[in-house]
Amino acid sequence: MSNATKTLYKELETQKMGSQTSLTQALDQLVFNDAGLIPAIAQQHDSGEVLMMAWMNRAAIEETLQTKQVCYWSRSRNNYWRKGESSGNQQKLVSMSTDCDGDTLLLKVEQLGAACHTGRRDCFYNDISEQGLKISCDPIQDPSQLYGKHST
Amino acid sequence: MSNATKTLYKELETQKMGSQTSLTQALDQLVFNDAGLIPAIAQQHDSGEVLMMAWMNRAAIEETLQTKQVCYWSRSRNNYWRKGESSGNQQKLVSMSTDCDGDTLLLKVEQLGAACHTGRRDCFYNDISEQGLKISCDPIQDPSQLYGKHST
Repeated sequence: MSNATKTLYKELETQKMGSQTSLTQALDQLVFNDAGLIPAIAQQHDSGEVLMMAWMNRAAIEETLQTKQVCYWSRSRNNYWRKGESSGNQQKLVSMSTDCDGDTLLLKVEQLGAACHTGRRDCFYNDISEQGLKISCDPIQDPSQLYGKHST
Repeated sequence: MSNATKTLYKELETQKMGSQTSLTQALDQLVFNDAGLIPAIAQQHDSGEVLMMAWMNRAAIEETLQTKQVCYWSRSRNNYWRKGESSGNQQKLVSMSTDCDGDTLLLKVEQLGAACHTGRRDCFYNDISEQGLKISCDPIQDPSQLYGKHST
């Protein structure tokens, strides 16, 4: 998963606030999995809601930084997934960060409408406790009005 | 990654708020990767800060639900990682949920002190933009006081 040349994020651990690195180096040193993907958490920037988690490859990251519209890589469709392309429920990028290990991204976004393909605001509606699973919310949009099949 | 017998989360997509499923069935139907792991996002329950992302296996999930102290699986140490065991910076579980696909967990927690092994409150301190990478914050605790080596 990592190799000897990937030392940037280790070095940054002890750097001070404000320290800077080039975008090329930052992306070169991200830790992608064997499929060339890195997990990306999408969070509504103002309310703090965690909306969903999906995956990005390097080109999706670069496109997202350039366009400010979030683009993932769909593992099920094996293609770029420009969020909201069919539903209209786009994610506008507010900021992007990576974690201490350089193996996860956090995207702060402005989410239009439902983030979840079920029509719910976010994807984390299956609460799990020792008492079992319980659905915590209903859709805010009719998914059949968003698109014909599973795709957001 | 998925197979024909894993249909629970697909069925739950159209269920109403309040619908319930047994814990055994909910865990049986989670989608673990080839290493038997599922990503878990930890979020401070009241402020909404996304603190970190790590991985859990089924036993770590069950222990976390029972003890209400978050236990991950450390991929680098290949062992259970009871958060805060050495640093004292524990994560108390407030609630757990899974997403529409059953392949990601969201843990709402009460985080004591720094969640990050660098001593920073959270792990997402490397801001990335078209202008490059910039470190957004400094540690709130001296990591050398937390533990001798990389371990949280």
